Amino acid sequence: MNRRSFIGSTVIAGAVTIAQPVAAAPPPAEEKHVTQTLTRYLVAAKFEDLPEAIRTEAARSLLNWVGVAVGGSHHEGVEIALATVAPFAGPAQAAVLGRKERLDIMNAVLLNGISSHVFDFDDTDLTTAVHPSAPVVPVLLALAEYRKVSGQDFINAMVLGIEAECRIAHAVTPTMQDAGWHATGSVGAFGAAVAASKLLGLDETRMCHAIGLAATQPVGLREMFGSMTKSFHPGRAAQNGLLAALLAEKGYTSSLQGIEARRGWANVLSTKHDYAMITEGLGSHYEISRNSYKPFACGLVVHPVIDGCIQLRNENNLTADMIDRIDLGIHPIVLELTSNRTPRTGLEGKFSVYYAAAIGIVVGRAGEAQFSDAQVRDPVVTGLRDRVETAVDPSLTQDQARVKIRLKDRRVLERFVEHAVGSVENPMSDAALDAKFTDLASGILPDGQARKLLALCRGAERLADAGDIARAAAA
Amino acid sequence: MNRRSFIGSTVIAGAVTIAQPVAAAPPPAEEKHVTQTLTRYLVAAKFEDLPEAIRTEAARSLLNWVGVAVGGSHHEGVEIALATVAPFAGPAQAAVLGRKERLDIMNAVLLNGISSHVFDFDDTDLTTAVHPSAPVVPVLLALAEYRKVSGQDFINAMVLGIEAECRIAHAVTPTMQDAGWHATGSVGAFGAAVAASKLLGLDETRMCHAIGLAATQPVGLREMFGSMTKSFHPGRAAQNGLLAALLAEKGYTSSLQGIEARRGWANVLSTKHDYAMITEGLGSHYEISRNSYKPFACGLVVHPVIDGCIQLRNENNLTADMIDRIDLGIHPIVLELTSNRTPRTGLEGKFSVYYAAAIGIVVGRAGEAQFSDAQVRDPVVTGLRDRVETAVDPSLTQDQARVKIRLKDRRVLERFVEHAVGSVENPMSDAALDAKFTDLASGILPDGQARKLLALCRGAERLADAGDIARAAAA
Repeated sequence: MNRRSFIGSTVIAGAVTIAQPVAAAPPPAEEKHVTQTLTRYLVAAKFEDLPEAIRTEAARSLLNWVGVAVGGSHHEGVEIALATVAPFAGPAQAAVLGRKERLDIMNAVLLNGISSHVFDFDDTDLTTAVHPSAPVVPVLLALAEYRKVSGQDFINAMVLGIEAECRIAHAVTPTMQDAGWHATGSVGAFGAAVAASKLLGLDETRMCHAIGLAATQPVGLREMFGSMTKSFHPGRAAQNGLLAALLAEKGYTSSLQGIEARRGWANVLSTKHDYAMITEGLGSHYEISRNSYKPFACGLVVHPVIDGCIQLRNENNLTADMIDRIDLGIHPIVLELTSNRTPRTGLEGKFSVYYAAAIGIVVGRAGEAQFSDAQVRDPVVTGLRDRVETAVDPSLTQDQARVKIRLKDRRVLERFVEHAVGSVENPMSDAALDAKFTDLASGILPDGQARKLLALCRGAERLADAGDIARAAAA
Repeated sequence: MNRRSFIGSTVIAGAVTIAQPVAAAPPPAEEKHVTQTLTRYLVAAKFEDLPEAIRTEAARSLLNWVGVAVGGSHHEGVEIALATVAPFAGPAQAAVLGRKERLDIMNAVLLNGISSHVFDFDDTDLTTAVHPSAPVVPVLLALAEYRKVSGQDFINAMVLGIEAECRIAHAVTPTMQDAGWHATGSVGAFGAAVAASKLLGLDETRMCHAIGLAATQPVGLREMFGSMTKSFHPGRAAQNGLLAALLAEKGYTSSLQGIEARRGWANVLSTKHDYAMITEGLGSHYEISRNSYKPFACGLVVHPVIDGCIQLRNENNLTADMIDRIDLGIHPIVLELTSNRTPRTGLEGKFSVYYAAAIGIVVGRAGEAQFSDAQVRDPVVTGLRDRVETAVDPSLTQDQARVKIRLKDRRVLERFVEHAVGSVENPMSDAALDAKFTDLASGILPDGQARKLLALCRGAERLADAGDIARAAAA
C-alpha cells in the first residue's frame, strides 16, 4: 500500500495545530463577518419585533411539530433509542413527548427530535428541504422545563433558531444537498444552538462560539435515508446545538467565523455559497413565513394526486364501486419515485401513486393510519388501485396534478390541482392542522389532554411558563 | 434574494425521503462492499491473532494516552466542559481521568477525550494526522468500568478501533484534510464505534449499522484549531461512536455501505478515495505499528531542533552561559509555523523555534511544564533564545534538523538529526515513555498511584478486569 501523506501536504504544528498558510486569495471583505453579522441581529432581536403573522406562523409550526412528535413517540426507532440511552441518562428534567418517561435535557432532546421525524410528517422548508422545527423545538421544550421560560421568549427563540438554520441552508442550496448532506442534520445544530443561546441570554461573543461549536458538528448523510438513522439526524443535531450553547455559556471557546472561514462550515460542506442569503434582510423577512406543513403522511410528490382525489370524492360522494377507472396526469418525478403498482406494506404504500389515489377516494384522507399494512392490503382499496392509470405530463410543476375519474355511469369528473394543499401557495388551514394534530395524538394522549395541548400550542406566546407545553405533551 | 431550490434539483419523497435516482455510473463491483469487507474482518479478529509486537505497541499507546489524559485533566477547557455536563449527567458509571468526579459513560467519554487532546501531546499517525487513541480509549475505559472487560478483549478492541479509523483516514488522505476536516474528529467515530462494537460483541450486520451511524456523525472543522473546540473533536467523536454502537446493539438500523455508498462518508467528505487502503492486508498489517508518541509538548515541526539541542547539551554538559550562538538548519515549514522570535506566553512559546532551541539547552526537556508563561519569560532562557539564528535548508525532511552551537571558548558542536525522536523511525523508548507519563501525572496523582497506573497500562492484556485502569487513573 502506498500511503499518501497528509503531513506532507499540510502541516501539524502540535500543541495547537495550525492551519496551513493561506495560499488562496483572501475572501472579499464582506465575507469576513458573516457569523458576527448574523449573531449581532440574533442577539438583539426581541419578541416585540415580530410581526403578528410571524407569531401566528410560529404557533402553527409548533402545533404541527408537537402533533407529529406525539404521533411518532412509539415508533420502533424511538423505542430502541429510548432503551439505549435510559441506562446512562441523567435526572428526569424533561418530558419525552407522548410518553411517560422523563429524561435529562440532553437525552430528551435526542428522543423528541427522533420522534418528530420518524413519519417524515413534520414541517418543511420547500426550497432547502430543511425540516425547520425538528432540531429547534426539542431544545426549546427541554430548556423551558429546565429553566423557566416565558411563552414570548419561547416563540422568539423558535423564530430565530429557524431563521438561522434556514438562512444558512439557503446559502449552500442546492450544492450542499447534492454533495450528499441531509440538510436538516447539517444545518440543524445552528438552529438548535441559536434557539438555546437566546433562552440562555448569551452575548454576541458567546453566541458566535455556540455557532462555531454547532458548525463543527454537522450530522447527516443522505445515504441513511430509508433507515432509522434518518430521524436520528435532527435529534442529534438538536443535541449538538444544545451542547454547543451550554458550553459557550460557560466560556468554552470556538471560532468567531464558524460559518464563513476558509476552513469553516460553508467551505467544507459545500463548493458554492451565497452569504447574502444569511446577512441580507435580517429582521424584515422571516424564514418561518415560508414554512409548510404536510397534510398527507407520504412523499410530497404524490400530494397533488391525493388532494385532487379527495376533492372529487367529497364533492361527489364517491365510493370505489362507482368508479370505472382513474387517469392521473403527473409530473415526471412522481413515477420516478412512486411507481410501485402493487405495494404490500404500509411503507411500500407511500411509494405508490396508485395506492395514494385509491386511498384518497376510499378513505378521504391520507394520514399515518392510512399507511398501515392492513390498509394497504384492503381488497376495496387494492381493487380500485388496479384501476388507476398514469400519464406523465411535463407541463406540470411538482405541486400540480390532473385527476380524471370515469364513473361506471359514464360520467367523467375532472380536477386540475394548481397547488397541492400544504404548498406555500395553498397552506393547510388552521382547522386542517387541528385535525392532523388530533389524528396524531389519538390513542397516545387522552382526548381532553390532546385538546388542552393543542390550545397551549396555539396560545404559546401568552404562556407565563412555556414548560406547560412539554408537561402537557407527556403521556 | 433569489433562492436556489433544492427540491428542484433533487427530490423529497416524504415519509421516507429517497435519494435521487443515480445518474452517474455505478461504482465498480469491488467498491460496493467496503464497509462489509472491513466489518467481516473486525468481527472475526481475536486477541490471539495479534502479534507480540502489536500487543506491545498497544500497551505503549495506552500508557502514553493515559498519561496525557491525566496530565490534561485540569485544563480550563476540561473544567468548563465538566461544569457544563454535570447538571444533566447520569449515574456515576465511569471515571474522569485525573479527577475525583465520576460521570455516566457517555459524558465520561467526552471529558476524557477532551483531556487527552488539550495539550496536543497524544499519539499521532504521522501520515494522516489522526490522533488514534483519543476517540478510542475513552470508550474502552468507560465500557470496561460499565461492563466487565478482560484485558485481552480491551487490547484487541483498541487495536481494531485504531485499525478501522486509520485505514479509513488513509483512504481519503490528504484530500479530506485539505478540504478542511480535522481527521481525528472526522474518522474518530469509526474507531470508537468499532472498539465499542467489539466489546459489545456485535455481529456483522450490527457492526455495519454502528459504522453507518458513525459515518453520519463526522466532527471537526480545521477552522477550530487554536480554540478549545479542537480538543472537543476527539471527545465528541468518541461519544458519537459509542452511541452508534449502543444503538446498533439494540437494533437501530442504518446503512450497510456507510463508508462507500454514493452519498456515504467517503464521497461526501472527500473528492478522492482509495478503498484498497481499507480492505487490503487486513490482519497482516496493523496500523498501530506505525503509531508515534511525542516527546515534546509542542508542534512536531520543532521536534528535530529540540532533539538535537538536548543531545548536544547532555553530551557536553552545556549551560546557557557557555554558548555564544546557535545556528539551526531547518525545513522550510518550521519558519512558516514557528517563527515567533519573542514569545511572551507558554502558548506562544510553542510557536517559536528560537524558544524551543533555548529551552532544550537550558532545561534539557520540553514537556508541558516547559511551556508555562513563567518559563517562557525566564531571563536565562530569553537571553539564549536571542542568540539563536535560523537558516532554511530545503534538503532536509520534516523530521530532520542541523544544530550548530558555537561556544564562547570557540569550540563548535554540531549535530545532524536524521530522524527526530518520536518519529516512526526513531520511536521514544519505553523508559522515555515512562518518564513522560510520570511527568504528566505528577501533581495530579500521588506518586505511588501513578506508578501503579503505569504498571496497569503496561500489563493491560494480563488484567482480569480492565476497568482497574480507569479506577486507578481517577484522583
